[in-house]
Formats: sequence, C-alpha cells, structure tokens
Amino acid sequence: MPMGYLFVGKRFTRPDAAVSAAGEAEYVDDLRFDRLLHGKVLRAAHPHARIIRIDTHRAESLPGVAGVLTHKDIPHNVCGFTFLDQPILASDRVRHLGDAVAAVAADHPEIAEEALRLIQVEYEVLPAVFDPEEAMRPGAPILHEGHRWDRNVCFHRKIRLGDAASGFDESDVRVEGDYSTQWNEHGAIEPHICAAQPEPGGKLIIWASTQRPFLWRSDLCRVLDLPMSRVRVIPARCGGGFGGKHEIVVEPFAALFALRTGRPVKFRYTREEEFIASTIRHPYRIHYKTGVRRDGRILARQVRIVSDSGPYCSWGESALTKAAIHAVGPYRIPSVHVDALLVYTNNPLTGAVRGFGVTQVSFAHEVHTEEVAQELGMDPLEFRRVNALRTGDVYTTGMRLESVGLLDALERAAAAVGWDNRNGIQGPAGGRLRRGVGLAAMIYPVGFTSFPNPSAAFLRVNEDGTGTLWTGCADTGQGAHRVLTQIAAEETGIHPDHITVIGADTDLTPFDCGAVASRTTHIGGNAVKAAGRRVREQLLAAAAALLETSPEDLAIGQGLVAVAGSPGRSVTLREVAAFSYKRGLTIQAEGAYSPDLTPLDEETGEGRPYDCWVFAAHAAEVEVDAETGEFRVLKLACVHDVGTAVNPLEVEGQIQGGSVQGIGYGMMEEIFCREGRVENPHFEGYLLPTSLDAPETHQTEIVETFEPSGPYGAKGVAEPALNPTAPAICNAIFHAIGVRLTDLPATPEKILAGRAQTASASGTAWPGSPQRSS
Amino acid sequence: MPMGYLFVGKRFTRPDAAVSAAGEAEYVDDLRFDRLLHGKVLRAAHPHARIIRIDTHRAESLPGVAGVLTHKDIPHNVCGFTFLDQPILASDRVRHLGDAVAAVAADHPEIAEEALRLIQVEYEVLPAVFDPEEAMRPGAPILHEGHRWDRNVCFHRKIRLGDAASGFDESDVRVEGDYSTQWNEHGAIEPHICAAQPEPGGKLIIWASTQRPFLWRSDLCRVLDLPMSRVRVIPARCGGGFGGKHEIVVEPFAALFALRTGRPVKFRYTREEEFIASTIRHPYRIHYKTGVRRDGRILARQVRIVSDSGPYCSWGESALTKAAIHAVGPYRIPSVHVDALLVYTNNPLTGAVRGFGVTQVSFAHEVHTEEVAQELGMDPLEFRRVNALRTGDVYTTGMRLESVGLLDALERAAAAVGWDNRNGIQGPAGGRLRRGVGLAAMIYPVGFTSFPNPSAAFLRVNEDGTGTLWTGCADTGQGAHRVLTQIAAEETGIHPDHITVIGADTDLTPFDCGAVASRTTHIGGNAVKAAGRRVREQLLAAAAALLETSPEDLAIGQGLVAVAGSPGRSVTLREVAAFSYKRGLTIQAEGAYSPDLTPLDEETGEGRPYDCWVFAAHAAEVEVDAETGEFRVLKLACVHDVGTAVNPLEVEGQIQGGSVQGIGYGMMEEIFCREGRVENPHFEGYLLPTSLDAPETHQTEIVETFEPSGPYGAKGVAEPALNPTAPAICNAIFHAIGVRLTDLPATPEKILAGRAQTASASGTAWPGSPQRSS
Repeated sequence: MPMGYLFVGKRFTRPDAAVSAAGEAEYVDDLRFDRLLHGKVLRAAHPHARIIRIDTHRAESLPGVAGVLTHKDIPHNVCGFTFLDQPILASDRVRHLGDAVAAVAADHPEIAEEALRLIQVEYEVLPAVFDPEEAMRPGAPILHEGHRWDRNVCFHRKIRLGDAASGFDESDVRVEGDYSTQWNEHGAIEPHICAAQPEPGGKLIIWASTQRPFLWRSDLCRVLDLPMSRVRVIPARCGGGFGGKHEIVVEPFAALFALRTGRPVKFRYTREEEFIASTIRHPYRIHYKTGVRRDGRILARQVRIVSDSGPYCSWGESALTKAAIHAVGPYRIPSVHVDALLVYTNNPLTGAVRGFGVTQVSFAHEVHTEEVAQELGMDPLEFRRVNALRTGDVYTTGMRLESVGLLDALERAAAAVGWDNRNGIQGPAGGRLRRGVGLAAMIYPVGFTSFPNPSAAFLRVNEDGTGTLWTGCADTGQGAHRVLTQIAAEETGIHPDHITVIGADTDLTPFDCGAVASRTTHIGGNAVKAAGRRVREQLLAAAAALLETSPEDLAIGQGLVAVAGSPGRSVTLREVAAFSYKRGLTIQAEGAYSPDLTPLDEETGEGRPYDCWVFAAHAAEVEVDAETGEFRVLKLACVHDVGTAVNPLEVEGQIQGGSVQGIGYGMMEEIFCREGRVENPHFEGYLLPTSLDAPETHQTEIVETFEPSGPYGAKGVAEPALNPTAPAICNAIFHAIGVRLTDLPATPEKILAGRAQTASASGTAWPGSPQRSS
Repeated sequence: MPMGYLFVGKRFTRPDAAVSAAGEAEYVDDLRFDRLLHGKVLRAAHPHARIIRIDTHRAESLPGVAGVLTHKDIPHNVCGFTFLDQPILASDRVRHLGDAVAAVAADHPEIAEEALRLIQVEYEVLPAVFDPEEAMRPGAPILHEGHRWDRNVCFHRKIRLGDAASGFDESDVRVEGDYSTQWNEHGAIEPHICAAQPEPGGKLIIWASTQRPFLWRSDLCRVLDLPMSRVRVIPARCGGGFGGKHEIVVEPFAALFALRTGRPVKFRYTREEEFIASTIRHPYRIHYKTGVRRDGRILARQVRIVSDSGPYCSWGESALTKAAIHAVGPYRIPSVHVDALLVYTNNPLTGAVRGFGVTQVSFAHEVHTEEVAQELGMDPLEFRRVNALRTGDVYTTGMRLESVGLLDALERAAAAVGWDNRNGIQGPAGGRLRRGVGLAAMIYPVGFTSFPNPSAAFLRVNEDGTGTLWTGCADTGQGAHRVLTQIAAEETGIHPDHITVIGADTDLTPFDCGAVASRTTHIGGNAVKAAGRRVREQLLAAAAALLETSPEDLAIGQGLVAVAGSPGRSVTLREVAAFSYKRGLTIQAEGAYSPDLTPLDEETGEGRPYDCWVFAAHAAEVEVDAETGEFRVLKLACVHDVGTAVNPLEVEGQIQGGSVQGIGYGMMEEIFCREGRVENPHFEGYLLPTSLDAPETHQTEIVETFEPSGPYGAKGVAEPALNPTAPAICNAIFHAIGVRLTDLPATPEKILAGRAQTASASGTAWPGSPQRSS
C-alpha cells in the first residue's frame, strides 16, 4: 500500500460540525416563504379496493383551499425504479393503505386537513392478501396483471455457481434452517419534506430532503413532463436518509400546486405517514441449506428468499438482487444456488433501507453459519477462518475480489471480546445473569448493482492557491464532502480547509447518482480524483516553468510544489496560481467516474455487478437475564475493512452510527402490521435506539486494505456497519443462554419462549445443546 | 463568412426581460437580513491635508453604534489597479474630498450618520493643486513621492510608429488643434452598494453590485488578508455599471464589520458620494497635429494628452494607454507620435468609465479630422474614405487588423442622414433654425490592454438533452448570458431556452475577468465555445454509436444529431443523452480562453495589446436655434462593425443605449468642480439623457465582418456605441451653423459664444468658414 499521503488517512473534522451539533443547522422546514401554501395527502381507506368515484367539489370550495389534485392532474401518473408500477395518485384502484388518492394545498395546514375530510371517495372493496407465500398460491387476488413470473411474483432473481446438487452429495453434513426478519422503518428524525417555489422566468425550485437530487429531478421531470432545464432541485440539509429519501413522494404535488398558483408550496409528512405511506424495510423469509465437509469446508449452500414487496416493486428487485448475490455470506463456497422472490401483497410498501437486502441475509447467514459450525462441533471462529473469503477469490457472480480484509477483521473482532476465553465469561451455570459472546461476518458491495452509476466533479484552483470543488455528491450528514475534499487536497496539495465545496444541487454541480449504495467515497471520490489529477498536471506544468525544471521532477506537498530531492527548491501554490492566472491560464478541470459493470445473467447471475466489496466482523458480548429474557449489549466490537480510510474519524463515526442502528434492528425495531394496517405508526410504539442503548464498550477498528479500483485504495463505509450487529448479538445470546434466535428482532419474549423449549436451563458452552426459537 | 448557424445570429429575447421591464427584479437593496447593520463613511474635510489625529471615542459610545473603523483596522490599507497608491481609509493624509477617513456601522442609518458627526479629525491643511498642467510645474505640491516620472506625473505612455518628423516634413498641409473633455459620471441608477453576511463555518458572503466579481474578490481578499476560500462574492443584479462598478469601495468595511459583529452589514452610497467619492471620467486636454498631402492622405499625426487623474491612479494608466493607442483614430497613418500623461491633482478621483479613454480621443480626433478636411477643402466623408483603416492594415502598436468594416459603416451612416444632399437640408441662410449633418468614425479594442484576461466555462448536457452552462461572466444588464447561451447552443444543438445559465458567482462558476472592456462576447464567448466544442465531441461520439456511423459523418441540428446527407437518419439529443448516461457517461466539459497578448514597449508602444477591434460610424442630423444656441438631435444613425452579431437584438439594444449615453456625454453631462469640490453632486444639477432626449429617428445598423479570433467571427459591442456620438453631433452643429465646438459638452452657451466670434452668422456649406469655440 502506498504511504505518505498528505491529507488522505488524516482525521479532519467537518466545517459544519459545530453548527450541526448545536442544532443550528437549517432544514427545509426552517426556510421562510411568503404566501406559503401547505399541502396534505388523502390516503386510501382500504388495503385493496377499486375506486368508483372521487368527488373533490366540497374540498375545493372550502375557503383557504388553493386546489385539489387527483390522478387526472398528474401528467405521467406512474413511478418506480425497476418497474413503473406505482401511481403517483391512485386512479382506478388502491393497493395498500398508504396509497395517495388526492392532494390538497391550502393557506394553513389545518384547512388542508379539513379539506381532506371533505373529499369523498367511493370504493369497491377487493379481496386482499397479506402473506407473500399465500399471494403466490392459486386463487390469491392479483395485484398487478401481466407480469412475466408466477402469480404476484414481481421478480425472481437466480444465482448459480458450480453444481449445488453435487456439492451437497459430496458433503459430510447438511444443515438446514429457516430465518425471518421484520419490517423496520428508517427512523429519520426529519420526515419527508419538500418546498417548491416558482421563479420568474419559469424555473421551478424544489428544496428537498433527498439523498439523490439528480435522479430525483429525473423522476420528477418524467412525472411532470417538464424539461430538466426548468426544474432545480436543491438538496437541503438532510435530517436522516438511510435509504428513505430516495423517492419522489409529495414533490409532484408541491410542484404542480406551485406552477398552478405561482405560490410557494410545502408538503411535510406526519410521523404516521412515514410508517404507512413511505417505504419501510422488506421483511424476508429465508431458507438455508449448507453442505459441509467434516474438516469444516463448505461445499455448497442453497438459499431461498421470499421478500414481501407490499403493493409495488419500488427498490424491491434491486435490494433482493443484492441480497441474492450476497446471501451465502463472505465465504468461499464452490457451489451456490440462490432463488430470491419478490412478492406483491397488500401490506405496506417496502423499499430501500440502509443495508438494502444484505442486512436481512447477513442476519440469516451468520446465524445459520453458527448452526453449521455447531453441528460440526467446531468453534465458530475457526469455522469462519476455514471458509472466509480471501483476496483473489471468485465470488458468486464470477468476479474476482481484489481486496479482502475479512480474516483480519474476524481475528480482531474476536480478540476484542476475549474469544479465546469465551467459555470463562458466561457466569455460574444456573445463575440468573448469563454472559455470552457472539461473532458475525459480512460482505457488502459498493455502488449500484450492475447499473453504471457515474459521479462527476469540477475542480478549480483560485488565484491565491486556494480551491473550489464542485461535486454532485450529496452530503446527507455522512461527511461525504469532507472526504471528497481530502481527495481533492491530496491531488493538488491545497489544504482541505482551503477548498470550498459546492455540493449537490442540480443546477450548480456536476451530475451524480446520489448518496446511496455506500458509493460516495469510491465512485464520487474517483470522480474528484480524476478532476484533481488534471488540475495537478496544470499545477506541475506551471511550477516547472517557475522552477525551471520538468514536471516529472516535481512533487506536490502541503501548499507547495517542490523539486523532488532538492530541499529548498520549491514554490508555494499561491505563487504557482498567481503565475498561471497572470499568463491567462485558469486552473480548472472536470472529472468523472463510473464503474465498468455488466448486467447479471438471468439464469445464473453471472456478471460484473460492482467494482469492489467491503468486509466486516462484529463481535458482541451480552448479558441475559435467564428469568426475564431481558438482555443488554455490554460490548460491541466492529472491525471494518474499508480499503484505505480516507478520513478515519468519519469512518469511525459511520461505524458507530451504523452499528447502533444494527442494535435497533436486532433488538428493538419492528413494525407490527395486521391486515395491511400498521399498528404502531409512532415512536411511542416503535422504539429507536438512543445513546443509552449503545453498548457500554463500543469499539470500532479499521482494517485497511488497498482496493485497486478505489481512490487511493479506498472502498467506503456506510451501510455495512449496520449489518453484522444483529447476528453478532443473537449469536452471543445463544452463547449465553443456549437459545437460538432465528427471527428478528431479538426480544425477551422470544428468549423466554426458547428457554421453555430448552431441556437444560443452563448456558451452553461450545459445542452445546442449542434450541431454535422463532 | 460561414453561414447557416443554428442559433448564432438569431434574435433571442432574454428570459428575465419581463421581470426587469416590470421593475420586479431584486437588487442588493431588496435583500432582507435579520439584525442588519447600516454603514456610513466619513469623508475628508479638505482636498489636501495632513491628518493629525482621529478621535472616534464619542462615536463609538453612541448607543446603537456597532463600531468605527479607521486606517489601523484595515489589514492591507491600500488598493489600486496599476499602482497601489490609494488607501482604503486615509491614514496620514487626505488627497481629495472623497477620501474615506472612517467608517461606522450602526443599527440604523440615522445613528450611523450621527456617529459620523461625532468623529473628530484634526487636520493640517496642505497646499493643493487643481490643474494638471500646473501640477507638473516646479513648486507644485507633490501628491505622491517616489514616482519615476516628473512632478505629479503618475504615468507617461508613448506610442511611436514610423517617423513623425519626416511625415510632417513631407506633408503639404499641417493642421493643429486643441480639444478638451469634461468630468462625467457613470450615472447608474443604482448607487454603489454591498451587503456582507458572515456564515457559520467562517465563510463571508458579499452581495455586490459589481462588474467583475472575481477580480473584486481578489482585491478584497488582499486588503482583508483573507484566503479566497473564505470569501464568496455574489454579484447581485446590477443597476448599471458602465465602468463604475469595478473597484471595491465600502466592501472592506462591510466585511470587517460583519466579521467583527457576526451580523449582516450593508453600505449604500448616497447620490452625492457617487459624485464625490466614487470614480468619474477623466477630463482630457488633447493637442493634435496632423500632416496631410493635398490628395487627402494623412502622413503623420502627433498627439499630446494630459489626463487629470485626481489623487490616485485607479484605472487612469489603463484608460490613458487605451486612449494613446487609439488617439489617431481609425485611420491608416504611417507616422504616429503620441505622448499621454496622467497627472495627480487634488481634484475628484477619476477611473474607468464606459469608453475608457477612447471616448475622449474619439471626440477629439473626429473633430480634428474634420478640421483637416476643411483645411484641404475636402468632403469629410471622402477624406475619411481615403484614410480609413482596411482589413490587413497595421495599426499603431504594430498589429495587423484582421477584420475592418469601417468603410461600410461610414457609407451607411452617411447615407442614413442623406449625406449626398447634406447642403440642401441646412435651411435658409440667415434663418433662425439651421440644420446640419455630421459624421464620426471610431476604432475600439476588445478586452484588457496587454493583460491576459481569461474567461472560463463549464458545460453539461442533462440526462434529457437539456443543458447547463456555468460562466464566470457577469450579466450586468447587457444581455451577456443570452449571447453566451446561444454560443453553447450553437455547439451542442440544445435550444438556448433549454440551457440553464449559472452566472458569475465566485463560489459557483469558473473564473472570469469581468464584464468590462467590452470583452464578454469575444473572450467569454470563446471560453463557452471551447467547452461547447468538447461537449459536441461527446455528443457526436454517442450519436455515432447510436446511428452506427462515425462522428465525422454527423451534423448537429436543433435538438438532434443527423447523418449528413441522409434525411431521416437522426437521433434526438434526448436520445443521445439518455444513451450516454445509461452507459455511465456524464456529458460535461470545461473550457477557457485568454487572448495571447504581449506588453507594449515603453518607448514605442509596440506590442500585441488585443485580439481584435470593432469599428463604427455615427451620423447625426441636428437642428440649431441660431438665436439661442439650443439644438436638438433629429436623427442619429449608428452603424457598427461587431464582427458576427451573435444576437442582433442585443447588439441593437447595446448600440441604442450606448449612443444615448453619447448624447448625454456630448450635450448634457458635466461635473462642475471648483478647488476640488464638486458643485453639482446630484441629478438636479447633473442632467442625464432620458428617453425624451433620444433622437426622433434613432437608427442602428450592424456591419458584419468575420473576425478570425472571435467565436463564430464575433467581436462584440458595448462601450463603442458611446464614443462616436458626441463628435458626430459637434460636426453636425458645425455644418448647421459654422461653430466648431472643441470642448465638451456641446451647449447653447458655447454655440452662442462661437457665433459671436463668427464673421458670418449664416450656416456654412463645405468648405465653410469655421470658427473654433472652446
């Protein structure tokens, strides 16, 4: 790995850290407008029904109402990522309770609410289906006609590597298991919100809390039938995205009302709408079968995933494909057979949530993997050592992995919880408080699956040697701009504090595919590096003229260019910049990057879906109350291979935040849904982890590898930190108390239920006497 | 000239035309701020004095005062373009009544005014000098010590071509004359104004009414000792620049108060300050001597210019150099000898004003040229025909002229006022109302003199085939952005209405040297064209892949790319863009341009100061009241060689506006100054032309030539339209009534004085019996 970076690998804090921490940052809801209209949305009254008639007359004549929109007002009334199967406003049919049927704008939010009550919708209730397996059976009501797969199957993804049948035949042991995961909500503090303002000259400005302003503009312009030159999307400070701020939701309404009335318009979701109308995480039911030799080598793994999509596809295909590719976990397995089904139901709409399908399978494969180890009577760490992916391995879609730091991560995570002495920590057999440690490993890809997803940048050196960086990448709070600034700094020698960042605005910056898919450091970083490299060449050429040497003899340092090996022969960047501008040379360049990908084969999944992957191991120590089933996470060690850590401070912050989200996912967060209706659409009934739920000892470590496709070897971090937390906790609970949790979240009730099935009430040392509880 | 442009040469209106015309545009003074501080400036009490002591204590303790600045508070207390000879706040000495001595910021403007009165400044009055010729004499008080030239000479520019002495020797006739011009004011409706706001994170935003945001930021950062990365200059809508919005004036005060207090701060000049503190136009005294053969060929011309700079250099050297280069007018003269002197006095500070030195000499050389023709008994048009510059001629600094449309312009201007029948229009000899026609020619350069002055641009094609153009060029109301959009459109095929322009903001756009020196169409346009050319290549490559042909076979049309010569084989830009983005290719490029210039030789003026020149001829018809001297401009025909007119509508608008400014300069505008004090610092005593002063028949015509260095052959328009108006009017007055006006402005009083000296009270047919009046 090349060393001696100027700014890469250093711990720079963000310029806006103090403002954010003080709560002084300005969000969309803080913007002030004159004559603002407030919008509200009417939702469906039934999870599945035909719309006979919509009568908006009484609502429209309510004083203070600026207008009512129904499906007839939407130029192209359909949206969706993989399939255009979702109406913006329901026309002939509603398919879940979150479907929008009408939208109102009024002088005050209360008037808008009152207008919603005055809209009369006549429905014919249709039979509904709320279980994905049932939905696939003959006779189930069909949500969308004309799909290529079986009844209500939205998508079927297959991954085939090697020959699974032979693999199982050659195996000494075959282990099967079923695992299931729950609906969960992004839990962003800021709900979905947007403000639209018509400008003189015909431009429409939309302030939005969005992770992907450009693709969002693209969606909006398609729905509204407007050229992109007429719409400017300004991504305001984002109060939490986590995959939830991908889609246009109420923005078409805001835009249409603004264009109709000439007034600014704001729509803001209620917390309830966050649960019932915006996307939530797909619940998966997953069956695993693993064939393994006595020596621990996995020979074959077969996986079947059924994902409840709710009424529309949204990001379900994309998340499911990512899940399918990584379903077997970070292991070298010669034969892989995965079938993943996305199924329409009348349940809430699911979509992109941090971890994006891999969260669900990470839980499943890591619990399953321990079950296999247990069956072999093998230490789970040793079992993972035998099978863990290494650099140079070929993974499920046939791609060679160029940088794998998994073994390091496993060893360090295990060491952090005292793995070698793990059977000494459990506490007295038969005691009430039992401790245990658990481990989980993970693989996660960087960027969109198979889709080219470019980032672009402009970079300029000012006349005084400071700089300006234009990046299309949105900083949604994850610190992306600081990292991109460090990359620009590394190429040019300009200190990051002297580089102004112009970030993500569809009118002001180059294109980008969004702060999604953990892609910003790698893809956005490569774009900045490309621009930086060209600026560097200009700086070196000018410095060479000043120093009367050739550019090849020069090296860039902090704020200067020096003749390599000649101490004292240098010029400052200020001098280089002044020299250039005085000669009429502006120092500027554009740069862009898109990974070179190919689609997956429909039958085998073969293809090049990503540039690179990150790896991680989490280890948890828990204390379980054997009488109540209550448990605490005493320690969580999170060790991540991120390639080169461009800013270790930011990487650690990402790991800390993500792994606490993993605690929420693993222990607390669950949306309860009965016949399509969310029963706990509020933070009173849906608990998010707070700082008090963070582990007492929360350790983050970085394993640095060098990824050839990344900027300075960087891969990235973000979603991955969430994924291995829940399985590490569940495996630790098993170690503590012998109850195998296969259904998320882990709750005291499930532990007690598992205990009740357990012959021995004592904790279980490896190999133990596991009981499955789900 | 290549023909068949898609968008170049077409009459596009501006997107903001309606807003501007309705008075709904937002200027700096319309911005709203919370807790705004209002700034005021204390001016000098004497035109020349030593400062003994400044006591600000009483002012500082006035309730509502946020602070008082004196020279000690300015980090680098000096500014200037050619020489750093001007303090931001006077320290030991004041040199004119406009010198700023202290600045105050307070909660209300009235409190700030009151605080000014509480500042006590103790002066020792020094001898002052108010006449530039006197200032150069021994014993005159010296304003700045240590200059390389004679007493109070700030700068001496020499132009030498051929051998003037021999030229005069070989001449049949030698004519001499003296001409003088007045101080005049830019007359922008909006005074100098700025607002500064400190941002969280340390950034300072300054909204300014400025023509050159980047060089302005550069000046400001130097004075404040701040890195450019900490200062963002947003050029707000400019309510008139005309050369007056070049310099930082109160912005350092606004910035310092904002940084000190954390509050937004606004400074706005009073109308009086516009006259006494901001720059005004240099008054010139000019002596001409021309040697000419009997056949009309000019053999030699010698010019001496004395320019009153006031107390500092400001743009005086630059304007004077431009005047010196063009002092001989648009004529092929083998021997040229010019000496131009810039002299310090204690008069008001002069600087850049539209026309920039050439306005003054244009008046002088055109009146003088007619005097020479008169001496020869030759028709002034015919005399100009003989001597007018042609394409391929070498001009005063030794440069070859690549595009000269002067002869065409002269013929068309003359024809427009019925030149051939000019002696038939005068009216009855001895009658009270006499009519006359006059002609004037002009040469004007494009861009800074000898200084590389780059422009830069970014250009992007959006995913739907619309576009975004980033230009550093400020649109100060002249329509620059429309023209630049047409150039981007020409390269890419995207309709200008579908290209969003991001204009001039030091944080948001590429670099540019400013909307000055009539440089935007040519230099800014070349930068946009360079970016457009690279985008075009990307479009052609993608279209070639779509159409299965090679890029060379393709042509770009409006919104499409087509196979040349194969009707129907085409793809839309929307298709090309979608195709590219789906493959991960963002369509974007940067471009830049700077003319390749060299400095002028100090002794001869030889060098390459510009890329190109524009030419014009104006013809005026006037009616003079022989009894009162009052006169009206009945007709003004303005014919301009602008190269290719990228947008004829904008070109005509520029010519109309500029030539009416010329009427103001020629007939009305004059600052009266006694002992350094402006006697008419208000629009009651200083008359600007209104629409009622425009000629009844106001004709604009465009002569198109093709300038090889320009984008699509374009050169530009702007300042030139002002210059030939005053001499055309004066020459018409001479034709009407026989009074030769050699001192601007032309007024009834001067006409009556000239009449009094005229033997014959009748008008004068060519050749006539001229009388000089000055």
